[in-house]
Order: sequence, then structure tokens, then C-alpha cells
Amino acid sequence: MAERKGKTIILQSKPRFIGNAAVVGKKEGEGPLGKEFDEVFTDTTMGEDSWEKSESLLLKKAVEKVLQKSAADKSEVDMICSGDLLNQCIGSSFGIRDFNIPFCGVYGACSTMALSLCIASLMIESGGFERCIAATSSHFCSAEKQFRKPLEYGGQRPPSAQWTVTGAGAALIGKNQSTVSPYIDKIHMGTIQDFGITDSNNMGAAMAPAAKKTISDFLRDTGTKPSDYDMILTGDLGSVGSELLHQLFLREDGLDISAVHKDCGLMIYDRESQDVHAGGSGCGCSGTVLCSYILNSMRAGKFSNILFIATGALMSTVSSLQGESIPGIAHLLNIRKGE
Amino acid sequence: MAERKGKTIILQSKPRFIGNAAVVGKKEGEGPLGKEFDEVFTDTTMGEDSWEKSESLLLKKAVEKVLQKSAADKSEVDMICSGDLLNQCIGSSFGIRDFNIPFCGVYGACSTMALSLCIASLMIESGGFERCIAATSSHFCSAEKQFRKPLEYGGQRPPSAQWTVTGAGAALIGKNQSTVSPYIDKIHMGTIQDFGITDSNNMGAAMAPAAKKTISDFLRDTGTKPSDYDMILTGDLGSVGSELLHQLFLREDGLDISAVHKDCGLMIYDRESQDVHAGGSGCGCSGTVLCSYILNSMRAGKFSNILFIATGALMSTVSSLQGESIPGIAHLLNIRKGE
Repeated sequence: MAERKGKTIILQSKPRFIGNAAVVGKKEGEGPLGKEFDEVFTDTTMGEDSWEKSESLLLKKAVEKVLQKSAADKSEVDMICSGDLLNQCIGSSFGIRDFNIPFCGVYGACSTMALSLCIASLMIESGGFERCIAATSSHFCSAEKQFRKPLEYGGQRPPSAQWTVTGAGAALIGKNQSTVSPYIDKIHMGTIQDFGITDSNNMGAAMAPAAKKTISDFLRDTGTKPSDYDMILTGDLGSVGSELLHQLFLREDGLDISAVHKDCGLMIYDRESQDVHAGGSGCGCSGTVLCSYILNSMRAGKFSNILFIATGALMSTVSSLQGESIPGIAHLLNIRKGE
Repeated sequence: MAERKGKTIILQSKPRFIGNAAVVGKKEGEGPLGKEFDEVFTDTTMGEDSWEKSESLLLKKAVEKVLQKSAADKSEVDMICSGDLLNQCIGSSFGIRDFNIPFCGVYGACSTMALSLCIASLMIESGGFERCIAATSSHFCSAEKQFRKPLEYGGQRPPSAQWTVTGAGAALIGKNQSTVSPYIDKIHMGTIQDFGITDSNNMGAAMAPAAKKTISDFLRDTGTKPSDYDMILTGDLGSVGSELLHQLFLREDGLDISAVHKDCGLMIYDRESQDVHAGGSGCGCSGTVLCSYILNSMRAGKFSNILFIATGALMSTVSSLQGESIPGIAHLLNIRKGE
């Protein structure tokens, strides 16, 4: 039975990462983490005739890969928790349709990797589930088509805009596995924060207050400080949101987190040479970075205690056109290694 | 700790319905269950200037109402699990934005009431959560605008089409409550079933195989038969899907479930006089019927052992235009009273 401190849940089952996999597109393969990914698809159509189908296939490939790397049969998986940015989450439903594994659809925008892992962890903690997959995907071209302009339009992007990652991440978690694997020690699910940001080309600003609140609440609940962790890894605040997060911590808590803070959106691309403006974004951003470099590095002993906080902007094109501000949310996992 | 039989989870925490509330629009208020709802809004704009905002406000009203009926303060609620049919689930994110309660976004199309209740139940079963709200909403006008034609177009509807319910349902569940309240004894989360139906005006046919599989798997796991239950209540199969469900049970299992089967989509409107073709649909359909008439009747001792199975069609307008078939899913809860 989990324990609760404030809004932080301390898991007793300590679900372990049995396997993790990340598959990406060409641009991500050319970035600084290129060698960490399990597969790079230089043709980002994936041979499909629509971008939505390409994204579904990416997710399918990530799930197939995590099953293969974990030497697990799909019949041994009790649940897939997955979601994405496409309308009605069709990236996930069509991507996992053929697996014949029970499906829990989630929606957390770019916070989805953390949300799906939180729900999968609670399923395992409940005692009713042995092994669950948490997954998510995004695709630059399906996201541009749906949220901004068709690619053919060639619209310009402001410097605060982020580049949607083409990629999918999947993790298989479960109880009683080898102690070599990292495990989920605690989770903290976030509350919506809305500071009135309306610029949908500035998601970092909309999401930073949510990340700040979730991290601060977690540190208070657990009586820990930023330097207790090897890394505080946010999902995809990008350069604008990361700077804001540092400022919020300095101003509100007098804490300088810049030494320990990293952001998946600033890790996946080389901003100097890859023309991605404020950095990477999309569900696949934190999904692929966590499910490759981060978990691989933890397995290799490089980090042993991290906070992973994926952030989401809970808007739609319709809400933005109707003048609504952008509600942000952030879900956190404390991932550890070595016990 | 929950027990598992096949894919059925037997909850040990037996989360109880502390409160339930349903608010609806004019047409639903005029239907056979009109007197069961907590509030009927005859102006379905809700005074808002867009249908999306009207839907969010409906959801907010349902959550406020369930808190009020449960004499609970929002600070006593550990989580809201909610989702809806709008792109990026904005019905939920904007509807619950102001509550300052942690938010778990889910996506299950019209299966959402069952999905959000399943996840909320597992949260409580994990030991980390005391009280969770499960909620959902739909609105005829926002759904028509997004999924079909603008209302002004006046498009015709085939007889197999269903009418999206304008309404929101919310339930507060938790441990250790008065034994007068119904409780969730078991849950069974479904697997995607896709039989190749492509007609998005025939959701009943797309969802019936998913309902069949979930119910059959549950009956097999638990060694029970349809007549062991006071009611097998599906979400919104409507007349076409309900008929198909009966046929599937007869053909595959030799079971006649027609005496014990009810469908929320056939209960909420009077099909003779209300011009809804094959019946009601939308997340709000099973959401409002469960959170009014059904739970109220269980409290009053009218039923003591029911299966609630909400079904969802996991498509989008884009997937349908791209020629994709409609994946269906069904999640089940066994709700009991009296122990």
C-alpha cells in the first residue's frame, strides 16, 4: 500500500523499468542523442500515406521494440497506458490497436509520458497488475498539420516556438525485477496552473508555472532540496520555459536550480545547427529522451536519483482561437537506482 | 491489495460512491429520466459564447454539485479523473481548471465514465488516495460542430445515428464510507476490438463487439452468468448496437441477455417522441444516467448488483476521412450494494 505525504505518493511496490525503447525520425537521429535511440527512421512518412498513420506506426514500433528488448510477449503485459496530441488520441488507439492488450487512454498533452507512467505505477501498486506499458508519441508533421499550418504553407515561427519531436517512447514496468533496473520510488500528480498566457507559440511560458508548483510541492512534501538529486529533468520547457523556471525558483524559494536542471527539449536537438528555435516539444520529446538516454544512463550507473517532470499545455486550437489562456500541468516521478 | 482473476480486478478497498451528480440540458430534462437529474439547464448555451465553453461549464456544475451533495470541500478531494470528446479534451481541462485539485486526464471517447471510474478506483486501491472524483461531459452542439456539421447546416441523420447527450456526470468515490452507499467491487478494463466498421453514423455497430468481449471475459473470469446481475447496463450502444450485442451473445455463447440488459442510450430519451433515431450517445450519456437514476436507485435498494459497461469509439473525423475503421473499447465496473 502506497503512503501519502502531502500530495506525494510513496510507492511500496517500487515498479521497475523492465525495458525501455525509443524510436525517432531523421532530425532527432541527427541530434546530440542520436546514438541513444533504438531506431531512427530517415523516411518520416514511415511508408504511410498520412502523417497520422506515420505517427501511429512510430508508436507501434516503440511498443514492439520494448517488448523485444524486455524479452516479453505481449500476452504478459496487463495494460498499455498511452496518449498523444492528435485529436481523440488516434496516434495511440490506432498505434496499439493490433496488440490485443487492455488499453487505458490518457490525455496530458506533452506531460503524457509522466502521466502514463504515474497511472501505470498506480495500477501496479494496486496489486491488480503485474506488468504495464506506458507510452506516448508525437510527429512533427501531424502536429504542424493539426495545430499550426500545413507544411506546404511554409509559415514562419517566432523564436519562442518549439519544434515537435518525431518519435515515440515506451517503457515496460513491473514488480519483482532484477535490482539492476531503475525503479519508480515516488510520484506526484499535478494541479492545473493557468497564469493567463495566451500565446500558443510560447508553450514554455504557459507550462513553467505548473512545473514550478509540482517540483516545489514535491520538495516540500519530501523534505528534500534540488541538490539531493542527480538531475531535475523537465519535459519540454525549452529555452524560454527553462529560464522562467529558474527565475521562479530564485524569486519564490531563493533556490538556484540551474546546476541540476535539464530539459528534454534542450537535450534532443542541437539548437545551434538544427534550427529548432526554443527547443523540442511534443509528447515524444520527454517520451524518447526518458526512454533512451536517461534510463540507459541510470542502468549504466551514471545517475541514481532523478526527478522526471513532464509538462503539458492543455489547450486546443479552438480554445486558443476563442481567446482562452493556456492551462499548464506537470506530473512528476522520482526514479531511482540501486536498492 | 487487489486480486486478479483473468483480466478482472477484484478490489479489496471497495471504493464507495460518497456522492454522485448529473446535470443536463433541456432535451434530457424532458426525457424519461428528467426528474432524476440534479439540474436541468433549459438554455444549453449556459450563458457562454461558445459551445465548448458551455460544455466546460456543464462539467464544472456537475463537479460543484457532487461536492455539495457529498458535503465535501474541494480540498478533501485527492484527484479528478476526467475526459471528454472535444479535441485535446478541453471540456475537462477548462471545466476543472479552477478547482485546484490534481487532475488526471483520460481519453476513452464514450467509455470515459467507466474509464475514469476504473482509474479512480485503482488510485484508491493503491492506498495513496482517499477520495477521487470521476467525471465526464458531452454537449450535443459542441459534438455536432466538431464531429459532424455546424448546426446551421441542418444536415440529415440516418436512422442508425445517435444523439449526443448534453450533460455531465460526476461521482466522488472513497474508502470507509457509510455502508448505505453502493461500492465498486470489481473492474475489468477492455481491449480494443475493431471489426472493420467504417460508418461513423453507426457507432453502435462499432462498439457492440467491444462490449461483448468485455462482458464475456468478465463473466468467464468470475464464473458468473447474466442472470446473476440485476442489470447489465451498457453505455450508449443505442438500438442498433444493443440488438447486435444480443445477437452476439446468442450466437457465440447461446445466452439471451435481453431480459437483464439495459442501455443508457435507450433510457435517457423517449425515442417515440424525441426524434433521437437510434438513441443517446456521448460521454455524458452513460455519465449522467449512472450518476443519477442508477446510483440513486441502488441507494434506494432497487438494485444491488449491476454491471456498468461504457463503450467508446476511438476514432476521429480525420481517421474516418482517411478511410480507417472504428476501433471500439469497453470498460466494466461491477457495482454492488449492501455489504
